[in-house]
Amino acid sequence: MDYVPKKFSPYRLKASDLQVRFCTNETQATREVFVAKLQRMGFDICVSEVFSPAPAAVAVLKERGLRPHLLVYDGVVPEFDSVEKDNPNCVVIGDAAEKFSYQNLNDAFRVLIGLEKPVLFSLGRGKYYKEDEGLNLDVGVYMKALEYACDVEAEVVVFLHQYACDVEAEVIGKPDPMFFQKVLDDMGIQSHQTLMIGDDLVNDVGGAQHCGMKGVQVRTGKYRPSDEKHPTVTADGYVDNLAEAVETILKLRGQ
Amino acid sequence: MDYVPKKFSPYRLKASDLQVRFCTNETQATREVFVAKLQRMGFDICVSEVFSPAPAAVAVLKERGLRPHLLVYDGVVPEFDSVEKDNPNCVVIGDAAEKFSYQNLNDAFRVLIGLEKPVLFSLGRGKYYKEDEGLNLDVGVYMKALEYACDVEAEVVVFLHQYACDVEAEVIGKPDPMFFQKVLDDMGIQSHQTLMIGDDLVNDVGGAQHCGMKGVQVRTGKYRPSDEKHPTVTADGYVDNLAEAVETILKLRGQ
Repeated sequence: MDYVPKKFSPYRLKASDLQVRFCTNETQATREVFVAKLQRMGFDICVSEVFSPAPAAVAVLKERGLRPHLLVYDGVVPEFDSVEKDNPNCVVIGDAAEKFSYQNLNDAFRVLIGLEKPVLFSLGRGKYYKEDEGLNLDVGVYMKALEYACDVEAEVVVFLHQYACDVEAEVIGKPDPMFFQKVLDDMGIQSHQTLMIGDDLVNDVGGAQHCGMKGVQVRTGKYRPSDEKHPTVTADGYVDNLAEAVETILKLRGQ
Repeated sequence: MDYVPKKFSPYRLKASDLQVRFCTNETQATREVFVAKLQRMGFDICVSEVFSPAPAAVAVLKERGLRPHLLVYDGVVPEFDSVEKDNPNCVVIGDAAEKFSYQNLNDAFRVLIGLEKPVLFSLGRGKYYKEDEGLNLDVGVYMKALEYACDVEAEVVVFLHQYACDVEAEVIGKPDPMFFQKVLDDMGIQSHQTLMIGDDLVNDVGGAQHCGMKGVQVRTGKYRPSDEKHPTVTADGYVDNLAEAVETILKLRGQ
């Protein structure tokens, strides 16, 4: 792994006695594709270390014997390979982008309205995100559309830092502890033994703190200088980048 | 007008000393097209007697000096011919059907989010309607989507009977009296002098009653037998069809 640039050095954490997991709101690609991309960037990372909404949804679907009608991006469909999909009794929507056509949304709606009790899962509640060509609507917007059409409330399958676009009250009130707990369970540790590193103050840092973890904000990505004067969320620490976080953690542990 | 089938006989009302107006939730065609269709069916009806959401929106836009970005069905675009549309400072959505593509919705969203104070008009709040191929999502669903995306609340340009799909509390609380009042103003009469005939118990009949009119339900279209035992709305009368309503009205007036 000599080619790994030092600044992308979570592998140094893994070489220590610490456990590392990666939480992402990626719903347009499988974890395999996501991991391959990060590996190309020099990350020592494998699929089993990644927690994303689609596999979390698959677990819920299997647990409840649900057969989804999928309205998701083609790239993430393989995550649902192991799930029975004939004669659907629920709908799962992700960030389907251009697949959010009138026809496809009608199709999803018809499945829902045909059910005695419509069940809708949304792989996130984001409002919009930025692409090169401008702002694009995200899955949360289409979730609201179907919720209104069917008089249902979607079950949102997300990790904390997906609440990125919600008002603060909802972030504090609604982070679904189930998914955070899954990550903790996977590591076999408790929240007070865990440090979350993220670029979103309210949702990564504040959300983690709300669950009993420490939360450190990196001054990259979504970070804004005003975050350091936020009225309700104060990070346990700030670092300029992920590498600095890793160095600091290892130093504090005398490693 | 000998070809006019007797059952479509509002022209007999017009031949009396009564005034007649037609309120429609049609947002896919101009009033001209709508009127031509009804004329072919034998109705004695002209454009000035028809009240629909698009011209009502045009009046509001002009009054407030607003230049709309339109996301409406092609057929209704001519209603907006007289409105300045360059450099838009608001968005108007109607039942755009297949024009509700991801791209078009992104375009409308980008206009809204680019405004200091996003202004969104929706030509209705319907959830869905029935076509030959099944249920189709209606404009209200896309209104909710954009409302959520932009943290705005749309101004809804509708007539009472467009609240068809809302829960009752919203119908009672929210019918916009402005539009009903416009129809009354046009006739130069007051609500207690007016009778509303419609097929939707809660929204046509209940809505009209809420505004001080009498409300009669026709046992056609949206009518369901259970309407006659509705817990909160009781029509002032029921008729089997529009012809019976006309006959009854004329008989009561000794005509």
